Amino acid sequence: MKIKQILLAARPQGMPASTTFKTVETTLPQLMPGEVLVKPLYFSVDPYMRGRMNDSKSYIPPFQVGEPIESGGVAEVVESKDDQFSAGEIVMPGGPRPFLPWATAAIFPANHLRKTDNNIPPTYYLGLLGVPGLTAYFGLVDIGKPKAGETVVVSGAAGAVGIIVGQIAKIMGCRAVGIAGGAEKIKLLTDTFNFDAAIDYKGNQDIDAAVGAACPNGVDIYFDNVGGDISDAVIRHLNFFARVPLCGQIALYNSTEVPVGPRIQPVMVTRSVLMQGFTIGNYAPRFAEGVKQLAEWVKAGKIKYTETVIEGFDELPAALLGLFSGRNSGKMIVKV
Amino acid sequence: MKIKQILLAARPQGMPASTTFKTVETTLPQLMPGEVLVKPLYFSVDPYMRGRMNDSKSYIPPFQVGEPIESGGVAEVVESKDDQFSAGEIVMPGGPRPFLPWATAAIFPANHLRKTDNNIPPTYYLGLLGVPGLTAYFGLVDIGKPKAGETVVVSGAAGAVGIIVGQIAKIMGCRAVGIAGGAEKIKLLTDTFNFDAAIDYKGNQDIDAAVGAACPNGVDIYFDNVGGDISDAVIRHLNFFARVPLCGQIALYNSTEVPVGPRIQPVMVTRSVLMQGFTIGNYAPRFAEGVKQLAEWVKAGKIKYTETVIEGFDELPAALLGLFSGRNSGKMIVKV
Repeated sequence: MKIKQILLAARPQGMPASTTFKTVETTLPQLMPGEVLVKPLYFSVDPYMRGRMNDSKSYIPPFQVGEPIESGGVAEVVESKDDQFSAGEIVMPGGPRPFLPWATAAIFPANHLRKTDNNIPPTYYLGLLGVPGLTAYFGLVDIGKPKAGETVVVSGAAGAVGIIVGQIAKIMGCRAVGIAGGAEKIKLLTDTFNFDAAIDYKGNQDIDAAVGAACPNGVDIYFDNVGGDISDAVIRHLNFFARVPLCGQIALYNSTEVPVGPRIQPVMVTRSVLMQGFTIGNYAPRFAEGVKQLAEWVKAGKIKYTETVIEGFDELPAALLGLFSGRNSGKMIVKV
Repeated sequence: MKIKQILLAARPQGMPASTTFKTVETTLPQLMPGEVLVKPLYFSVDPYMRGRMNDSKSYIPPFQVGEPIESGGVAEVVESKDDQFSAGEIVMPGGPRPFLPWATAAIFPANHLRKTDNNIPPTYYLGLLGVPGLTAYFGLVDIGKPKAGETVVVSGAAGAVGIIVGQIAKIMGCRAVGIAGGAEKIKLLTDTFNFDAAIDYKGNQDIDAAVGAACPNGVDIYFDNVGGDISDAVIRHLNFFARVPLCGQIALYNSTEVPVGPRIQPVMVTRSVLMQGFTIGNYAPRFAEGVKQLAEWVKAGKIKYTETVIEGFDELPAALLGLFSGRNSGKMIVKV
């Protein structure tokens, strides 16, 4: 069977470009007993994938040059040589490498796939009930430990994780303040997602003053998705005993030199601040708890959700790059 | 009664100098019922005091210009108009402001003093069983959570806190690596205080390489007393799930501009690092636990202790400034 794949052509220096990717045609081997042939329906593209393009020590092994890029996704079974699966079922990668290769079809061992629930829209598995939802839940609840009346600031607030963080903060009785880029996203945060205030970093010359105005009682929890100048500004407003779940640093992922900025340790000492870097894999043993709680909130109408869906397998590289210019509201998904 | 006092003459910009201090003679008012007249015997001088010279929000209110500097200390009762105390007893300040003014004598309300135990050398209350010992204990045990076999690095290792951190790390079955300045201190750490390795930052051009060599399995806990370049080097060697009790930033206390350095958040995210700023006051409800444990270790010969004692009331400013040039080994004390 002939398929298309998108490979990592070369490791990018700084921002990835079209030369980072290469589309090739190849042929899948014959399906063997115990294997399942799947056709991807939806791919997730996520900021952390930039890190996998570097050849450096991190929590997931790097992509290999000449091999397909891979990401989260949902697929349909085309043919199965295993009793557990049959054609037409909707599945997700669920093995030790829970990723789909960027390919128009792929073969998996049956025990590296898991079925989805027909009552849940399949893309929810990539967002609200997937990595972004769980990241928001555990980062805010387990590290941030929000208490009613506190102020929670989230950067990258209109992203897949950010919109959920703000809504959980509201459920917990906190003031939710989002930082995002552009008037449209700001309106989305306050009008649709119930944030108490939102700061447009693209429209504000002085983020520091904007944070001060939006957080009259200071900042108790800063859920940091972006890093860089925006975080510098928020950190200046941290209260005593503030908590900083450190989720991502998208502003820095394409840096070619070691990023430099104001040292944060003096503020952290004088105000007894906690900062905890985390990746969602740390919480794998507690995923069921997170999914259950998020699903309950969704059913109760307490969490709303949005996606940006881009159509076409060939659009995968552009969709990934779009994350770094803020092209998405909510979860960025590519429909094949 | 005529006394001498040392006042804060002016808030320093950068490193304090002789003009920061002013010695004056003044007269104490008459002792009233319920009050106690004390004569300081020993003053503690500590790096955190630099922060109190600034007019900025921190965990202790700033010193006031024209008012006496104050610090931890041990004093002798000269005269008491309260039944709880009598002349000759050794006491410490124990009220809401647990400090002695830099004065040759002072009056306290009786309920702002507490007695010391005759079986313990009085200066131990300023060090091993005082703020530095408790800081080492709670920072390492409660934040660092050392596990046997892990590597603990402490900066400012020959200081009052550092020598205790290293010894507790050894008690917990860890590899203890200290960073300090000068061959004499390095020898002290490895020969007297049982550190597995010690790095002389004054003698090493490449701290990064020295940390790598001293920590072949990486760094699991970095107890940070100093900040700046030394911390930058250690942070590069942090392991996944490393913990950083953030105790002090002495390298930065005299900065006149916002200190700038490599951003630490990217490493913290990719390696799931915890950093917790703290001050010992956070642990006030658990002081008894800490004192009990430290005293047991001392009695069992598991913790050794050293002090640098400078003699003379007039030497107080010079002793304080000496902390910033590393004049002390262990706790710096001024004997009046």
